[in-house]
Amino acid sequence: MPAGKTVKPDDGLTTKQRRQQPLVIVNTGAGKGKSTAAFGMAMRGWNQGWSIGVFQFVKSAKWKVGEQDALGALGELHETTGRGGPVEWHKMGSGWSWARKTQSETDQAAAAIEGWHEVVRRLAEETHQLYILDEFTYPMKWGWIDPAEVAQTLVKRPGYQHVVITGRDCPEEILEIANLVTEMTKIKHPFDSGQRGQKGIEW
Amino acid sequence: MPAGKTVKPDDGLTTKQRRQQPLVIVNTGAGKGKSTAAFGMAMRGWNQGWSIGVFQFVKSAKWKVGEQDALGALGELHETTGRGGPVEWHKMGSGWSWARKTQSETDQAAAAIEGWHEVVRRLAEETHQLYILDEFTYPMKWGWIDPAEVAQTLVKRPGYQHVVITGRDCPEEILEIANLVTEMTKIKHPFDSGQRGQKGIEW
Repeated sequence: MPAGKTVKPDDGLTTKQRRQQPLVIVNTGAGKGKSTAAFGMAMRGWNQGWSIGVFQFVKSAKWKVGEQDALGALGELHETTGRGGPVEWHKMGSGWSWARKTQSETDQAAAAIEGWHEVVRRLAEETHQLYILDEFTYPMKWGWIDPAEVAQTLVKRPGYQHVVITGRDCPEEILEIANLVTEMTKIKHPFDSGQRGQKGIEW
Repeated sequence: MPAGKTVKPDDGLTTKQRRQQPLVIVNTGAGKGKSTAAFGMAMRGWNQGWSIGVFQFVKSAKWKVGEQDALGALGELHETTGRGGPVEWHKMGSGWSWARKTQSETDQAAAAIEGWHEVVRRLAEETHQLYILDEFTYPMKWGWIDPAEVAQTLVKRPGYQHVVITGRDCPEEILEIANLVTEMTKIKHPFDSGQRGQKGIEW
């Protein structure tokens, strides 16, 4: 086959249908940039007028506050001027923002499962065009959420909904059904030489 | 050495000085997310009130327009409300925005060199806190700009200025002086199965 030639897939879809295909995107590996690239993608989606839903399956509130504030500002700009799309940012940390009760620190598994169930509901209702399930590989890795169930839900989701999953050690079941998988590998990191996290870089 | 113990580097700096160390960051490799992660980092910087300077060493205007618009909106928000920091976005495409003349398509080398010289001037004047030199590896790879000269300029830059360089095949001279290097590797990509670029994902 000549170089540069595109392979036409045998999937019965027209080019347009294929072009509009919603993607499952995984940013994994031990390097930096997994979440940051996902939030960068959210900027693109915002600019397309998409509804963005961020679900952070992590405890710490400090990290990623920069992206949260910046995407929050873009979401507010949408509310006040109609520019771009709406942005919702949900953190598992001290209980999900839609839940009445606050979760205890020891009840993270239940909180993670609750978060996933909310994502399942929203996928069924086609709430967002872009979902960022940040650090979602961990509740799967730790056995709290079944990756096979997640994979099945994602494959069967209706409409035009992109889903980005970030975190190390992504389960094989998810990698199999993902359309785009990128591994971020650390080549050199300032922490190696004793440098500590600093504002603007790590949060 | 016990696990989790931090190595104290022997560089004569205090912890605070080390903490405030400006970084040279490289996002390289053949995978996706190199530029997207850099623009995500710009959101963090914006939230810190940093002056952000983006310099796109590429021809095409279509791609990355989402990030440009979103970061542009954040920059405008800074101008109107004082929130976050200022954002400047310069594209080499049809001549740099600070240059009077427009470059011909065939004169990309000169345009790239001119762009780099502007970055050198701004680094000397400490114009920005975060520079994103997007796809800057290519003019170095193609022999238009000397990586050794770039490395020397970056090492000698004054003050507190972070520099992010993106692109494949980053020259060894840059990797050597970089503080943080991440390689993005493609594991699976929708283009492999004939999927074409689509809005919100690729631009």
